[in-house]
Amino acid sequence: MNPTEPIVSQAQAVRLRIRAGEITGHTSGLAPGCVQGNVVILPADLASDFLRFCQANPKPCPLLAVSEPGAAALPALGTDIDIRSDVPRYRVFRHGEVVEEPTDIHGLWRDDLVSFILGCSFSFEWALLEDGLRLRHQDEGRNVPMYRTSIQTTPAGRFRGPLVVSMRPFRPADAIRAIQITSRFPGVHGAPVHIGKPELIGIRDLARPDWGGSVPVAADELPVFWACGVTPQAVIAEAKPDFCITHAPGSMLITDLSNSRLAVL
Amino acid sequence: MNPTEPIVSQAQAVRLRIRAGEITGHTSGLAPGCVQGNVVILPADLASDFLRFCQANPKPCPLLAVSEPGAAALPALGTDIDIRSDVPRYRVFRHGEVVEEPTDIHGLWRDDLVSFILGCSFSFEWALLEDGLRLRHQDEGRNVPMYRTSIQTTPAGRFRGPLVVSMRPFRPADAIRAIQITSRFPGVHGAPVHIGKPELIGIRDLARPDWGGSVPVAADELPVFWACGVTPQAVIAEAKPDFCITHAPGSMLITDLSNSRLAVL
Repeated sequence: MNPTEPIVSQAQAVRLRIRAGEITGHTSGLAPGCVQGNVVILPADLASDFLRFCQANPKPCPLLAVSEPGAAALPALGTDIDIRSDVPRYRVFRHGEVVEEPTDIHGLWRDDLVSFILGCSFSFEWALLEDGLRLRHQDEGRNVPMYRTSIQTTPAGRFRGPLVVSMRPFRPADAIRAIQITSRFPGVHGAPVHIGKPELIGIRDLARPDWGGSVPVAADELPVFWACGVTPQAVIAEAKPDFCITHAPGSMLITDLSNSRLAVL
Repeated sequence: MNPTEPIVSQAQAVRLRIRAGEITGHTSGLAPGCVQGNVVILPADLASDFLRFCQANPKPCPLLAVSEPGAAALPALGTDIDIRSDVPRYRVFRHGEVVEEPTDIHGLWRDDLVSFILGCSFSFEWALLEDGLRLRHQDEGRNVPMYRTSIQTTPAGRFRGPLVVSMRPFRPADAIRAIQITSRFPGVHGAPVHIGKPELIGIRDLARPDWGGSVPVAADELPVFWACGVTPQAVIAEAKPDFCITHAPGSMLITDLSNSRLAVL
């Protein structure tokens, strides 16, 4: 990628390669600086419940955009997006079970499908790294550790369940800085929900995350916990909708938005 | 005080009573919503070192205003301030020792004296209380606990010494909120400098503060540490200037600034 090229063009260029089937895996590191989104596609009869669930739980479910029913376009996130082809790999659920992982969903499209794009921690991690902080899970080459907590989300219709959090360890002064930085990004999970004392939110053993890899927390560090986009995934899995499509893990929608433009301050 | 009166008038009215000798004690609770300042008055030959010390250590020494040498006025903080009479009680130091605690310093005034007014935690505590957080030391009817730390300030001329911090316990989610709120107030100590793990900054026993009262920290709380205005007082005491005047503890300069206007965001 030409670093002098505008980042919108970079995002569009990557999406065209994804649409052409040239990229079918993880999107980490692609179109640097561009916002990547989690994807949830639901039939209209469930979509309004899910929209209310996101509205009531903005920290785990920060909505970047919602499509019109049946529309493949997401003009708020990019002029040329076609949600049926622009995610490298999808997961198709029927009655709560994964039935296939296609790279294109034109053949599954229906006029009643609504697409939800949710902000993801890649964006606030970008902001932390830009500030000079280091991320332990990146240094260790692992996925961030994630934990089911004793904190309940606010239910809406069929959607309910525990808040899932991701954890990043920082020394205290860096933890304070990380709180300041991520507070500027409410559209991508925002400020942490908890710091220190994992037992207070129902986490018994930091070394045994429910998802992702385990990372060490040093004696001079505090674990810092952010609301995690796995929350809506777990909630949907529990609700077992007849039909649902999501992105495959790590295989996100790349948007034209720049991470820095998500900062509210 | 008439609550419909502009707060500037309230501050002026209180200062007039102080000037008249009608108020000679603590200023806590007077002219609610108005910024109160710590006062340091030094001869010009030391003032430039102290100014550099404040510039290099803005968290413990947030400067609200500095007077012209010999000038009793502080127009940035109030149109009618006379620093020689508008503090309820002063402390006069000679060679590092308190020699008197007068309520007026007209008789001690010199053409080479420079007044420094530093922001104080009353202002950010006001913001925390406005947000609905509670302050343990207030609930317990004590002065906030303060501790000498192993963190060194940046020296300037004769001024050097350890950072002093104040401590307020909060539950983790409230601690995150307190970090967000006080980050908006860099002019009055700003964000905390440390959270959790007091031993990392040289505090051996939270129950034994170096200044102020002891307050309990519950098992579900974290101690949160802010840079404290006792830092410059301790640094000046150590430097033992030939001559120096400060406010007496708790007996501050009431300014026309409103606490809310100190917020940078």
